[in-house]
Order: sequence, then C-alpha cells, then structure tokens
Amino acid sequence: MTTDSSRGAQTVLAPGATIGILGGGQLGRMLALAASRLGLNINIYSPSADCPAATVAQSATVGEFDDVEAIIAFSQTCDAVTYEFENVPAMSAKAASSVTPLRPGARALDVSQDRLVEKSFLRDQVGVEVASFEDIGNVYDLKRAVKRLGLPCVLKTRRFGYDGKGQVIIREEAEIANAWDTLAPAACILEAFIPFTREVSIVAARGLTGHIAAYPLTENVHRNHILHTSTAPAKQDDGSAAKIAAKILDQLDYVGVMGVEFFQMEDGSLVVNEIAPRVHNSGHWTQDAGCVDQFEQHIRAVAGWPLGDAVPRHSVVMTNLIGTDITAWEDFAATPRTRLHLYGKTETREGRKMGHVNQIV
Amino acid sequence: MTTDSSRGAQTVLAPGATIGILGGGQLGRMLALAASRLGLNINIYSPSADCPAATVAQSATVGEFDDVEAIIAFSQTCDAVTYEFENVPAMSAKAASSVTPLRPGARALDVSQDRLVEKSFLRDQVGVEVASFEDIGNVYDLKRAVKRLGLPCVLKTRRFGYDGKGQVIIREEAEIANAWDTLAPAACILEAFIPFTREVSIVAARGLTGHIAAYPLTENVHRNHILHTSTAPAKQDDGSAAKIAAKILDQLDYVGVMGVEFFQMEDGSLVVNEIAPRVHNSGHWTQDAGCVDQFEQHIRAVAGWPLGDAVPRHSVVMTNLIGTDITAWEDFAATPRTRLHLYGKTETREGRKMGHVNQIV
Repeated sequence: MTTDSSRGAQTVLAPGATIGILGGGQLGRMLALAASRLGLNINIYSPSADCPAATVAQSATVGEFDDVEAIIAFSQTCDAVTYEFENVPAMSAKAASSVTPLRPGARALDVSQDRLVEKSFLRDQVGVEVASFEDIGNVYDLKRAVKRLGLPCVLKTRRFGYDGKGQVIIREEAEIANAWDTLAPAACILEAFIPFTREVSIVAARGLTGHIAAYPLTENVHRNHILHTSTAPAKQDDGSAAKIAAKILDQLDYVGVMGVEFFQMEDGSLVVNEIAPRVHNSGHWTQDAGCVDQFEQHIRAVAGWPLGDAVPRHSVVMTNLIGTDITAWEDFAATPRTRLHLYGKTETREGRKMGHVNQIV
Repeated sequence: MTTDSSRGAQTVLAPGATIGILGGGQLGRMLALAASRLGLNINIYSPSADCPAATVAQSATVGEFDDVEAIIAFSQTCDAVTYEFENVPAMSAKAASSVTPLRPGARALDVSQDRLVEKSFLRDQVGVEVASFEDIGNVYDLKRAVKRLGLPCVLKTRRFGYDGKGQVIIREEAEIANAWDTLAPAACILEAFIPFTREVSIVAARGLTGHIAAYPLTENVHRNHILHTSTAPAKQDDGSAAKIAAKILDQLDYVGVMGVEFFQMEDGSLVVNEIAPRVHNSGHWTQDAGCVDQFEQHIRAVAGWPLGDAVPRHSVVMTNLIGTDITAWEDFAATPRTRLHLYGKTETREGRKMGHVNQIV
C-alpha cells in the first residue's frame, strides 16, 4: 500500500504557508475562504482562470489536470497540495506528491475514481458492506451478471460518474441491450439494486497524527440524482456509520476530510455507496452549526494542524440552490435563521450548483 | 444635513455585483471574505498592493486616499462603495458618492474623524451624554480649560487618534505645558476624565430601509490603550446602549455597521466615548456566536439587502492577538471551542493587530 505522502509526511504548515488546491469549483472556493481565516494562503490550479475558487484565492495557476509538468511546477510553489475533486489523474497526483506533501494521498484517488476498485477496496480491504457488483466489459458480461445479481440492478461507468451521470437502471431483461448501448464503450460495473429506506452520509476528518473527528450522521434527499437537502444531525444514529468511516480513513492512512455515502436498509444496516476523498456537499451544513466546519477542518488536516470541534451546537437543514433556484436569493436573505452561500458563478445552467442555504433549526 | 447617499440611495445590489472598500486592513479582509460567501465581489482600494484585504478580494486598486481622481475612477467600477477606516478624506468620500452609492455616507466620516465635531454632534444633535469638552487651539486655551473641566483631564488631538495614540492624561497643573508640547501643533480637544467602572460597546447595523439590528452589549478590556478582550453578551445590560446607538444611526441616516464605545459609571449610566463608522474590533466575537456576523451584516446593509439575525446563540470571549501573541497560534488551534482568525500579515510589530481568537463559552 502506498503511504499517504511520499514527501514531508510529517510537515506542519505555519500561518503564511501556501496550500495548493487541484480544482477550482465551489469546494475549492469554500476551502480558500476557510484557509484565509486561518492566515494560510491558497494557490488554485484549474484549467479556467475565472473559476469560482480563483477569485478568492491568493494566487491561481491555469493548467490542465493531465499536464504533469505544469502540476510539478505548481506543486513546487506550494507547502502542501490537496484536491477538491476526485478525478485528478493518478500520474498528476503522483507527480505532485513527489515534490510536496499531497494530502489526502494519491491512493485515495486511485480508490475513489474507479467504482470497481472502490467497491473491491471497501469489501475486501476495509471489510464493509457494499452492493454486490460485477465487472462488465461487454454486453455478454452484462447479461450473465444480470442473472447473478437479479433485477432491478444498476449499470454504471467505472469512471467519471457524478450527480447520476453515467448510470442506468435496468428493471427488466429487455432493457439490457439498451442500457449497454447508453454507456458503452466505457468500462462498466453492474451493481445490485439496494432497496434502501433512506440515504445518509458521514463527513469525517483524519489528522496527520491519525486522530479522527467525524461529524454526525447526515440524512440526504436527492432530486433528479442531485443532492437536494442534507439534514444533520440525522435521527436514529447508532454510531455505526462513523465507525465505518473511521475504518476507511485508517485503511487509507488518510489526511483530510472525506465524505462517505450510505444506503440505509429497513433494519437500520448500512451499505456503503461511495466515498469522496474531499469535502462533500452533504457537509455544507457544518458551516452554520457552531462547530469547526468541514472546510476549515480539511485545511487544518492538510496543514498538519490539530483537528477542530466536529460537534454541532444546533441542527441544520442544507438545501442546494440548483440552476435558477438562485433567483430567489432575496427571499433567502430575508428569511430568519437562514444563511445564504453563493459560489460567484455568473452563468446559470440546468443542474448547476449555484449555492446553498443553511437553515438553522 | 447631507443625506446618506447622493447617488442611487435605494439601489439594491444583486449577487455578482461589486462593492468597493476604501482601506485594505484586516477589517477590509474580513468584509471581503463575508462578501464572497454571499456571491458579491470586492474591489479593495489601498495604497499598498499586498495589504491583508487585497489578497482575498476579487480585485484591488492601488491609490492614495487623497487622490480624488483615482477614487472617482475606482468608484466607477463599483456598484457601491464603503470604507473600513474613518480617516478617508472628506473630499474623497464626496467624490465617491458623486458616482456611486457610498454607504455609510460622507457625513458619518465628517462626524467621526474629528473629536470636536463628534462630541458636539453627539451632545447637541443626538442629545446623548458625552464627557465635558473644550476646543483647544493653544496653551492658554488649555490652561483655562483645565480650570473649567478640573483634574484629571485628557488632552487629545482632534484628528487621527487611535489605540491611545494622540492623547495625554493631565493629572496636575504642572503637566499642562508638557502635555501641550507633546501634541502641538495639532488642533486639540480637552476632555474631562470619566471615572468609569467599565468600558462597553455596541455594534449595530442600520439597513437601507431604516431597519436597525443591534448586537448585544459587549464588555471591553484594554491593555496599553489597545483592545485586549471583548466579552459578549455583557452582564447587566438594561438596553440603553442599544437605544443610544439607534439614535445615532437614525440621526446620520446611516447605512451599514457602526461601533459605539461607552464608559459606564458606577450608577450604570453610559457616557459615549466615540463612534466608529465601520465594523469594529469589539464586534469580532459575532463571527463565532451563531448569528450573522458584523462583516456579513455590513455587506448586507451596503448591498441594500435585509439585515440578518443579530441575536447570538452563545457567549463568546474575543481576545486580540497583538504583535508576538501570534506565535502561540498552534496552542490556540489545539484549544477546544476556540476559533482562530489570522489576518495574513507577515510582519510582526509591537502593538500590531495580527489576529484574534474567539472562545465560545
């Protein structure tokens, strides 16, 4: 197993140091705002100069994520590097970690950017419950696998899936060929359908010394495959989700914040759906819960600082503002106990995350 | 009386709009971070390109505060302009307000940047209690005034005083000549010494519609004339400080956040010491109190948005990190219920405000 950081595994960053972030979306933006509060500087690496994060960061570097030389040059200007999305190419992550501490490490990317590797890792190395799955290379694999896993089941691309993209539900045998044609020629995975009663997640951090701080269980509701609301702390939390998250973090020798998504069954048992090696949309409620929020927590971990309080002082319901939802900003601004967070995106597109509101309960 | 904004008095800024801030210190920095959360952009105007605020703002303009042409050009790029310190020259403020809404208005600067005008305004126009005072133009004025006000008393420069700079206590008649020599040839004011039992302040906001939201009374302790701690909510608050603040805000047709400092006497009565037409060091505790903080509140007011909740959910003790206090950052980061705020200043100087910590009680 790769250890977490090939370089400077124990390096602690002092105020005034620079953290590089691979990726310039809203997660990078909120990380940059948190870092600035702590007197740390951020350099954003993104293909776009006017991405949401670059405009609030101390510096920004324009480059493609697969440009290894550019990533190395960028990393040399940073005291540590992290990432805000999981599709950083493995080569680029390894290049960064060869010159500066990369937190979380490259292995967390290897595991999370391929659903087949991820599920195998979770089932075989961590030993936690996941949906039954089969590797699918062609339509014949798919037909055989559907027989073994039963109907309904879900065909997903192994890579680059998010917000429901790259997946098709197969409800009856007649849909198999069409499902394959929709996603081919991408390498796929077939997953048994989990008859869950609710979707929950855990956002947890692991510090440089191995200390873990988990936020409470969060209940998530999706609309059109995109996260709609997160409510925290979720009702009926027996603590098992936090234990599973801790196992995953330890197994990866992880440094930083991770999101772990679960399906919960009628009997309360949990099936891990996927992991995200970064701050997570279902952790945005932490910004207004009276604890150290997930963005500061991630920055603390990446900087090698002690982790902060992850115990909220009140309940929060987070609602994503998708596409034209943002046009109601004035109503949200006028609603008591409601905190508006906007990402500075100028172009509204259907399905695009423009901001979120946290309602303090 | 000048109305608050000569231009665009009722203009409401939408997300994506740009607010200009005259001044680039830590107050501007924290305003910029708050604006970014709301999807508003900040342009910092400062004589220094690498001031604390410029590095977190969407844009920065380098210029002198008395360069009226530069201020006009800057203001033309902004949908509204505000300031983060009270010594913006009157000409510059008026120039800004001739091209874009200036919030708070120029009159708040006129009143607060000259102690004689300020005390006269408070006593004669607002009708609130201030220390007895006399205008001092020469040492003969001073001798006569000391006789009228009694000893001890305090000689202060009318302009540019802060953190105890520009003031001398006179305890006996023999000290008069020396006190004058220390501050001359600056125009001065002599103030009766107030035998206070504690120092308190109110930070309050007034919105575009005249709505006022005051944070609770805050008790302040100074060390070497620099704010050391602020504790909020202060004990024994009968609501009169908030009423006085509201009178001042209304009288100025003010838009934005203001700090009002008081001396409190043994019988509980309040004497206004000074007003600051900006976010205020004694309001930094609001960042971690579970309400909308003073920085977001000011941005909301300047943008013409509704004001947010000013009612804290818990008590906070704010401690300033002055000079080398910042070297203990690692201890603060490790202390539970403690939130560290650093200003990104690289050079540590005696008496320089480097950051603060909020301890949640």
